[in-house]
Amino acid sequence: MSAAPERRPGGRRGARRERRGEGGPSAPATITRKVGFYDFADEDALARIEDQADWLLQEVGVEFRDDPEALRIWRAAGADVQETRVRLDRGMARSLCGTAPAEFTQAARNPDRSVTIGGRHQVFAPVYGPPFVRCLEKGRRYGSLEDFEKLVKLTAMLPSLHHSGFVTCEPCDVPVNKRHLDMLYAHMRWSDKPFLGAITAMERAEDSVAMARILFGDEAVDRHCVIMGNVNTNSPMLVDKVVTEAIRVYSAAGQGMIVAPFILGGAMGPVTTAASIAQALAEAMACCAFSQLVRPGAPFILGNFLSSMSLKSGAPTFGMPEPVISNYVIGQLARRLGVPLRCGGSLTASKVPDAQAAYESADSMQSTALAGANFVLHSAGWLEGGLVTGFEKLILDADRLGAYHVLLGGLPVDDNALARDAYGEVAPGGHFLGCGHTLANYETAYYDARLSDSESFEQWTERGEKDACRRAHERWTRMLDEYQAPSIDEATDEALRDFIDRRKAEMPDAWY
Amino acid sequence: MSAAPERRPGGRRGARRERRGEGGPSAPATITRKVGFYDFADEDALARIEDQADWLLQEVGVEFRDDPEALRIWRAAGADVQETRVRLDRGMARSLCGTAPAEFTQAARNPDRSVTIGGRHQVFAPVYGPPFVRCLEKGRRYGSLEDFEKLVKLTAMLPSLHHSGFVTCEPCDVPVNKRHLDMLYAHMRWSDKPFLGAITAMERAEDSVAMARILFGDEAVDRHCVIMGNVNTNSPMLVDKVVTEAIRVYSAAGQGMIVAPFILGGAMGPVTTAASIAQALAEAMACCAFSQLVRPGAPFILGNFLSSMSLKSGAPTFGMPEPVISNYVIGQLARRLGVPLRCGGSLTASKVPDAQAAYESADSMQSTALAGANFVLHSAGWLEGGLVTGFEKLILDADRLGAYHVLLGGLPVDDNALARDAYGEVAPGGHFLGCGHTLANYETAYYDARLSDSESFEQWTERGEKDACRRAHERWTRMLDEYQAPSIDEATDEALRDFIDRRKAEMPDAWY
Repeated sequence: MSAAPERRPGGRRGARRERRGEGGPSAPATITRKVGFYDFADEDALARIEDQADWLLQEVGVEFRDDPEALRIWRAAGADVQETRVRLDRGMARSLCGTAPAEFTQAARNPDRSVTIGGRHQVFAPVYGPPFVRCLEKGRRYGSLEDFEKLVKLTAMLPSLHHSGFVTCEPCDVPVNKRHLDMLYAHMRWSDKPFLGAITAMERAEDSVAMARILFGDEAVDRHCVIMGNVNTNSPMLVDKVVTEAIRVYSAAGQGMIVAPFILGGAMGPVTTAASIAQALAEAMACCAFSQLVRPGAPFILGNFLSSMSLKSGAPTFGMPEPVISNYVIGQLARRLGVPLRCGGSLTASKVPDAQAAYESADSMQSTALAGANFVLHSAGWLEGGLVTGFEKLILDADRLGAYHVLLGGLPVDDNALARDAYGEVAPGGHFLGCGHTLANYETAYYDARLSDSESFEQWTERGEKDACRRAHERWTRMLDEYQAPSIDEATDEALRDFIDRRKAEMPDAWY
Repeated sequence: MSAAPERRPGGRRGARRERRGEGGPSAPATITRKVGFYDFADEDALARIEDQADWLLQEVGVEFRDDPEALRIWRAAGADVQETRVRLDRGMARSLCGTAPAEFTQAARNPDRSVTIGGRHQVFAPVYGPPFVRCLEKGRRYGSLEDFEKLVKLTAMLPSLHHSGFVTCEPCDVPVNKRHLDMLYAHMRWSDKPFLGAITAMERAEDSVAMARILFGDEAVDRHCVIMGNVNTNSPMLVDKVVTEAIRVYSAAGQGMIVAPFILGGAMGPVTTAASIAQALAEAMACCAFSQLVRPGAPFILGNFLSSMSLKSGAPTFGMPEPVISNYVIGQLARRLGVPLRCGGSLTASKVPDAQAAYESADSMQSTALAGANFVLHSAGWLEGGLVTGFEKLILDADRLGAYHVLLGGLPVDDNALARDAYGEVAPGGHFLGCGHTLANYETAYYDARLSDSESFEQWTERGEKDACRRAHERWTRMLDEYQAPSIDEATDEALRDFIDRRKAEMPDAWY
C-alpha cells in the first residue's frame, strides 16, 4: 500500500528533518511530559511500602562502612549510630530529604543541551558500565578507548539521547586509575551534552569536579550543577565509602548525586517485589538524607534498579513484569517524596540485539517512560545484563526513544487535530491521501522511526533482506563518517589536556 | 551470577509448572485485571472526541451499501436515511449502544476455557488474516491447511493465548468458498478454546453458526455466546454488506460481533490521531447500534485499529507512538460507552522476527494491555503488516503475553510480600539466597519467560549461540511433537464432518 502524498520541498518538512535529524540543533534537550502519570499502586499499597522503608531505617538500620567521617556526620545529625550501624527515627530520612530540590538543571557546555531533571522532565542517557562491547562486524570484545570515543560521538549525534552518561563502555586499554581522565576528556571534547563524572575512588571524583571547573569555570560550578556522580549501594542496607565519599565530593561542591540501590530480588533483597521496592526506597532515602547533611539543597536523584531472577538458573532477568511493576511504583513513591527519580532503561539479558533483546528493552523502557523517570541511565546500548555495550543496540534503542517525545507529548485535540474540514473534501468510502488537511499535516503527523523497515516484502528482498541489526550497523558506521566535533575554546582544551597529563604523571599505572 | 536456592520437589513449584506449562489444565482462562486503568487523555479531550463522533454521525453520516435490509432497519429505527446514507441524531448511536452488555461470556467446549469479555477481563487471541506464513526452516510461503492446523494446535497449547481466533493463516490450498468449513472444524476439533466464525459471505456466517449448533447444541447456542464474527468497516464512514450481513447472522442468533474500523491515518481517515480515533468511534458505535437494532442485548465488541504511516513511503507502520496513544484513548472511550473493546495486538511491519518486530510488537502490546483491551486479536504471530503469520513470532509473542498475567495482577503488599522476618535472618551486607522467606516464595516470585535466555555468555556460546528466533523454532517444533488432541464426543465429531461434506458437495470450488 502506498499512500504518500506529493512531497513539498522545504517548509515544515525542512523543520521536521532538522528536528529529528542526527543531533540537529533544534532537537529538544529533554522530554517535557504533558500526559498524566500512571497510578499503578493504590494509596494503601504506597503507604505500606513507605511504612516498611521507615521500619527498615529505624529497626534494621543502614551500615555505613569504611568512612568514619560519614558516621561523624550522622552522629552530629542526631542519628542512632552503633559502631557502623546507623538507625534513623521514623520520618527522619524523609524529613532530611526535604531540602533536596524537586527539580534542577544540569548545565551543558552548549546551553541548548542543558537538561532539567525532575518534575515532568525526562532525560535519557546511554548504558553505563559494560567492560565489553559488541558490534556486528567484530563481535564481542573488551571495550577500548577508541570504542569509548565512538560511543560518545554517536551519543552526541543521537537526538533522543539527551545526556552523554559516563562509562558508556570501559576503555579497558587504559589503566584503571587513569581512564576516568580520558573518559571525562572525551565527554567534554567530543560532545556538548551534559555528562557524569567518576566515582570509583575519592580522588577520581575530585578529578572530575576539577576538570568540570576547567571546562565551565569556577563561578559556574559554584552556582550550577554541571556534573553528577552515579553510585550503587551495597544492598541490603549497606553503604560503603564509594558512596559516602562521592557524596562528600559531588554534593559538597553543589553538584548532583544519583544513588541507585541495585537489588536482584532473592539475593540483595527479599524475593518479593514490594519488599525490594521498600528496601530500595529506604537505602536511597538514607543516601539522599546524607547528601543533604553534607550540603542542604544539593541536587540528588533517587535511584532504583530492581531485577528479577530466572527460575532455571538464578541469573538476573530483565524486562520482566516484576521490574516493570517496580518502575511504576517507585515513580509514584519518588513523586510523593518530591525527589527526582532514576530508574529503568532499555534492559535485557540477551547476548545479541535479537527479538529477546528488543522485547525486554521495550517493555522495560515503556514502563520507565510512563513511570515518569526523570533521569534514565541505560536507555540505549545495554546488552547481556549490562556486561556489554552493543553498537547496534545503541542505535536501535535510541531510534525507539524518539517515540517517547511523541507519546509523552500527549494527544492534541484542537480544531486542526479534529479535521472537520477534511470531511467536506472526502466523502464516505473515499480517501484522505490528497486532501488539504493531509497535505498540511502529513509531514509532522507521525513519528519517523528511521530503523523500522516498512517497505514491501519485494522491496525488502531486492535490497538484500537486511534485518534491523544490519540496518543499525550501516547507520552507525555512516554516522561516524559524518561526525563533526563541536567547537571548544582552545585555551580550555589545552588546560584540560594539561590537567590530564599532570595527573597521569603523578600516578603509576594500575591495572586492577 | 548464580542465585538459585536448592529446589524443592513438588509443592508450589509443581503447581506453578502446571499453571505455566504448555496448556496445563489450571492455566487461567483470561486475565482479570487488578490494577487501575491509565488515564492518558483528560476529560476535555475525551469529550471533544465524543462530540466529534456525534458530529460525524449526524452531519456526515455513514454509508450502508448493498444491503437494503440494513437500510430498512435503520429507517424503522427513526434514522435519517437518504439513499444509502444513514445519519443519526446526536446521541442516538450512544443511546442504542446502551443495550449491549458491558460484559459477557463466550463459552468454550471446555468450560474451563470459557472467557469473560468486558470489564476488567482481558482475552488474548492470535493473529487473524495473513495469506502467508513464515518459519525459520521453510521461509515465507502461502499458508496451507496443514500450516493452519499446526497454528491452531500451538494456540491450543499456549497458556497465554486464551482464545483460538479464526484465520490464524489463510489455508490457501483450500477453495475460498470452502475453507471456512475446514477452519471451523480445526478450531472445534484440535482446540478446546473459544473461537470466531466466518464473515466473508452471509452463507459462510450461517455455516459457522450452524456448526456451532452441532458442537454446542441448540439450547446452548440460544442461551449463550459460543461464537463471534469479526469484521472491518470500509473507512471512512462506509459499512458494506459484509458487516451488516454478519451482524444479521451473528447478532440475530445472540452471538458476538466485533466491528473494527481499520484506519490508516491519512488514507482511510484524517492524518491526525484525534480525528482518526473519533472516526473509528463513530463507525464502531454505528455498527454497535445496528447490532442492537437487530437484537437488543446481543454481545458486541467495539473494535479499533489505527495505523500510522511511514514518511518515506506512505506505507503503514506499527508499534509507533500514535497508535499507542490511540490504544490508551480508545480504552478510555470504550469504558465511557460501557461496551467491551478490541484494540491493538503485537503488531509490526518487519518481515522477520528481528529486533524491529519485537520493539514494535512490545510497544504495541504493552499499550494494548494497559489500555484494558478486553479482546485482543493479533496478540501473537503477526509479521509484515499482517500479511504473514510467523511460527516463531507466534511463540515469541505468546511467551511475552504471559508477563501480562503478572503485570495486570498488580503488586501484593501483604505481610509475606513485605518480608520483615527475612531481615531477622539476613544482616546488612548479607544475602537472601537461602533465607526462609526466599525458599518459601522463590518458585512463584518471578515470571518465567521460557524463551528469554539469561545464561552466561560462556554457556550461551557453548550451546550454539542460539538467538531468540532459533530457540522459538526449536520450541514450536517440539510442542507439535508433544501435542495431544482434546477429546470430543464421537457423534458430534461425525455430525460436524457430515455437515462439512454436505456443504462442500453443494458448492463448486471457487478460488477467488
